[in-house]
Amino acid sequence: MTTTATITKQFISTAQLLEHWQGHRNLTRRVIEMFPEKDLFEFSVGGMRPFAKLAVELISIAGPALKGIVESQIEEFSEEAFQPKTKEEILSKWDEETEVINHYFNQISEDRFQETFNLFGQYEFPVYQNILYFIDNELHHRGQGFTYLRALGIEPPFFWERF
Amino acid sequence: MTTTATITKQFISTAQLLEHWQGHRNLTRRVIEMFPEKDLFEFSVGGMRPFAKLAVELISIAGPALKGIVESQIEEFSEEAFQPKTKEEILSKWDEETEVINHYFNQISEDRFQETFNLFGQYEFPVYQNILYFIDNELHHRGQGFTYLRALGIEPPFFWERF
Repeated sequence: MTTTATITKQFISTAQLLEHWQGHRNLTRRVIEMFPEKDLFEFSVGGMRPFAKLAVELISIAGPALKGIVESQIEEFSEEAFQPKTKEEILSKWDEETEVINHYFNQISEDRFQETFNLFGQYEFPVYQNILYFIDNELHHRGQGFTYLRALGIEPPFFWERF
Repeated sequence: MTTTATITKQFISTAQLLEHWQGHRNLTRRVIEMFPEKDLFEFSVGGMRPFAKLAVELISIAGPALKGIVESQIEEFSEEAFQPKTKEEILSKWDEETEVINHYFNQISEDRFQETFNLFGQYEFPVYQNILYFIDNELHHRGQGFTYLRALGIEPPFFWERF
């Protein structure tokens, strides 16, 4: 638990954080779109996963994790539920998850962000740290995605373009 | 300016954000360290900048930008001031900037994070957005760095290891 002293001065509100996150998700969506269909599922650098796999990971984290937090349900992490074969499937699932994220995020109270939660039965951290981790993980993998695009000779979108 | 309504519910405090940022900076430092000296300055994928250049960019943003925000001084962005020739120079400058960041960040008041500032005379956004941009930009480039390491056959550090 965090002491009162450390949570006194606000850096960012929950609404601002959600907007920030969805802006990033919008950019990641644009990166998925830019991959040629075949390369999305097959191309990689240095033995890493293709970008489709990374996108499935991101899709398997955010919505399910927020649902778990809101419902205080600890379920193991799994990517098995979604096995897309096309870019279109990934994009349409991505858009569905946009709504799922909004729906559950908005049900988390201010106090709850400071409480610990055993995410996926594995990551016991304050909720705000878990959520920052989802965003960080997305940026991290998208950085890989940008590199894949460059290696393919494709100019990635502007990093600062969000909505 | 953000309305009061949007800043009512706190997601994260300023102290928590600073700790989060410095944790990321620590991981980025580890990535710099892992590059062989020569590859740090020369290796890249798809025509992108070598990781030394990306590290210089990060060093040229955070501290100078925070100083500008605190002193309400608008100076143009420049990477000219720091032209390291060795990994050791980069790492020692990195550590200096750790203190610079702590020093200036702690002087920013809660209200100020919500005020707009014309960063480097170019990016007119609320201060919290500017600061999130520094962190995002670092994660983005570090994602590239991880990919470079993998392409070099080097296992990157664990993403979740911070301090």
